[in-house]
This record gives sequence, structure tokens and C-alpha cells, in this order.
Amino acid sequence: MRSMRVFRPSAALRTEGVNAPCNAGHAFSLFERQAVYRAIEERRDMRHFSGGTVADDLLQRLLSAAHHAPSVGFMQPWRFIRIRSRPLREAVHALVEQERCLTAQAMGEREDDFMKLKVQGVLDAAEVLVVALPPGREAHVFGRRTLPEMDLASAACAIQNLWLAARAEGLGMGWVSIFCPNKLGRLLGMPEGSQPIAVLCLGPVHAFYDQPMLQAEKWARRAALADLVFEDHWGQFTEMPD
Amino acid sequence: MRSMRVFRPSAALRTEGVNAPCNAGHAFSLFERQAVYRAIEERRDMRHFSGGTVADDLLQRLLSAAHHAPSVGFMQPWRFIRIRSRPLREAVHALVEQERCLTAQAMGEREDDFMKLKVQGVLDAAEVLVVALPPGREAHVFGRRTLPEMDLASAACAIQNLWLAARAEGLGMGWVSIFCPNKLGRLLGMPEGSQPIAVLCLGPVHAFYDQPMLQAEKWARRAALADLVFEDHWGQFTEMPD
Repeated sequence: MRSMRVFRPSAALRTEGVNAPCNAGHAFSLFERQAVYRAIEERRDMRHFSGGTVADDLLQRLLSAAHHAPSVGFMQPWRFIRIRSRPLREAVHALVEQERCLTAQAMGEREDDFMKLKVQGVLDAAEVLVVALPPGREAHVFGRRTLPEMDLASAACAIQNLWLAARAEGLGMGWVSIFCPNKLGRLLGMPEGSQPIAVLCLGPVHAFYDQPMLQAEKWARRAALADLVFEDHWGQFTEMPD
Repeated sequence: MRSMRVFRPSAALRTEGVNAPCNAGHAFSLFERQAVYRAIEERRDMRHFSGGTVADDLLQRLLSAAHHAPSVGFMQPWRFIRIRSRPLREAVHALVEQERCLTAQAMGEREDDFMKLKVQGVLDAAEVLVVALPPGREAHVFGRRTLPEMDLASAACAIQNLWLAARAEGLGMGWVSIFCPNKLGRLLGMPEGSQPIAVLCLGPVHAFYDQPMLQAEKWARRAALADLVFEDHWGQFTEMPD
């Protein structure tokens, strides 16, 4: 696999040829599989939105998709706060701006590059959703005795479901994590023990980026998958077909 | 939304009726959207596998789907260790069994219920993949100054991509987090600063559960989505159509 560069699973699927899937009895049709890979490949972390609205029934489908995520011990540790009030949205944006400046200062030589990347979506997107972990999570030991942070992992899976469903519905989404969680928690009246993990900007967009925005902006490049996959031992690369 | 029980987005999509999606220009076709929701709804955390194999090209598609996940500051903090050696797989299973007993003891009155839930997939699944965060993550400040755990959130999104793609391909997957990360790291020669976050069991299954296994086993029930969505302020429930 070492020589492979930007592999696209949907393209590989189309050239699958005569080999049926090895678990054909449970596999989706080729067209359905292509749709799933399309959502995965065309999903983008969006920062530019075109205003508009998200219909209530569509928002409900997206939240339900999130709620169908896996969770450690089936604890379902996700809560969603839909920001409806405009002054509240502006206060969320102010918190993000405050942290954006502090992050930039912590970046050293990349400060200027970072400051060019605006977080305008909090003001422009049709919807803003704050996702938070609920209080009382310490009661859930299943799968968390040695890895308590698996609650966050579960909530991230829910956000990814929402993201993919939004892309299929033609809506953009951005996950903003540039904020002080304590300040945001106070702003939204969150109880002791809860924690906000995301400010999601969601809504119509003029266009989806054809590659990750941070790659287009030359902030970072997508790694070769082959460099990320080992066999049996860290650092031992695996042989797979290109 | 308060009265809604187990809402299924795919069912809602079929009754969408005359309302076109509000962002029709970028939306997938109805059939494609249904396929995405189908993967989201029919994905299960599997514990029962039927052995067999996963073809190399299929495994590559799945890993590439994972690699197309979003990541904070585009840091791509996911590494995959494919366990090929049978003795190594048995050593991983032994670590899981060890932690399963320790978790059960920490559970108090639910100890017996917990011990009934075997983690046989580590031995039976066609493939076992360990997912880990790489060392050197402290260099990535973008989106992580106040929330350093966003690296884990990104890796969880990658795992969710893999999970959905596997379901579409007809393969089951289970995410095991019942292990001591230090012991597993030592077993796989992982460097200082890296951290394993998942033992993924992946492969053909006899059947997918028709509901989450922990719900079928009466460990927990799916919450009503309406209880998880607030408006503007924690605890303030929102009005949405059923």
C-alpha cells in the first residue's frame, strides 16, 4: 500500500469488476454503496454559508441520524442546543473570536496564516447547534473504566452521522472547536459536569469545496493512507494492492 | 418534538412528499439519501462474527473511507494497526478479558449482567484493527488550545466512517474499548505519546442485530430524541413537529 496516494474508495468500487463482495448476503446494492462512499468523500468542514433556512423536518432527520450513532455502553452521551436567539448567537460568535485570537498567539510563526482563516459561519449559517456531553457520565463504567474519554468518542460519532446526512441533504456543516468550554457552558446555562464539545454551523452553502479547505489554503495536505497503516507492530508497514 | 419516540429519518424521508429539499442544488438524489440513512440506521456495534475473510481491496476501501474523515486542523490523527499474527490476536484478547473482569468488579450490582456480555469478536472476527492516536499531537494547536481532546474526536469520526462503509459492504464491526491502553501500547510497540483508542473487530456476520445489542439485552434503551434537544438554554425543550 506504500505507493498509494489519494485513493478514493468510490473509484475503487466502480472498478471492482467480477468480484462480488465477500459478504454479499448483507451488502447494500452497488448504487447504495456508491451513495455511502459519495457522502464520505464529498463531506467537507465548511466555513462559508449562504444564509437561508433549514426546514424543521429536515433538521429533525439530521438530529435523528446523529442519535443513531453508536455509543459506549449505549450511554448516548449527546445533547444538542439549537441556538435560536440572534443575540445569543452573536455572543457565541464573540467567544469564538476571543479564542481565535488566543489560539493565534499560541501558534508562533503560523499566527498570521491562522488569523486569515475566519470563522464567519457562526454568524452566517442557517443554524447553529452546540453539542455537549451531559453531566453524570461518571456513573457509566461500561467501556470507560480505563478510557473515560469514550463518551466524547461516541458524541463525535453522532456528529459525523449528522455531517454525512447533511451532505447528502445538500447542506454544509462546520465543526468549530475554537472556544473556551467553561465560558460557553456558562452562556448556555449548562450544569456542572456537562461539557460543550462543538459549535456546529449548519445550512445551505453556495458550493462545497472540492478538497478540504485547509488543504486548498495550503495549511496541511492529506497524508498517504499507506503511511498510516501498520501490520502487527507500530511502524511496520503492510503490503496491500495499490 | 417531546412526544416523538423512535423516529427513523429514512421513514421520514419517504413521506417528505411535495417538499423539495431546501438546498436542492447540492442534495443527493432521493435514492442516494435513503442509502446514507440506511447505513446510519442499520449500522450496529457487532459482537458476533462468522469468521471468513475480508478481501484486501475491500479493506483498503474501508480504511480509505476512514481516512476521509474530518480532523481538527486537518491533523489526521489516526493510525491503524492490522493484527495479522494469531498469537498477537490472542494476546489482545487476553488483555480485553483481563479488563473485562476488572470492569465487572467496578460495576457493583450490574457485575453479573456485564459478565454475560462476551467479547468473543476479538477471536472470531475476520480482521482485528487497533486504532491509535500518534505521538507529537501537542504540536497541533489549531482547534485544540482549549479542547486538546479534539484529536480523539477526529479519530472517532474516522472510525464512524469505517463503520458505515463496512455496513454498506455487508460487514459487521464492533468497537472494543475494554482494555488497558498502556498494556496494549506495549504489546504493539507503540511509541511514547501515542495512545490506542479502539480494538475494532471487523468481518462477515451471520446476521445484523435488528436493534442495538445492549437494548436487546435490556442493558439500556434508546432515549427519546426530544429529551436530548434544547433551545438556547440547557433544559429548555424545543418545539418541533413529530
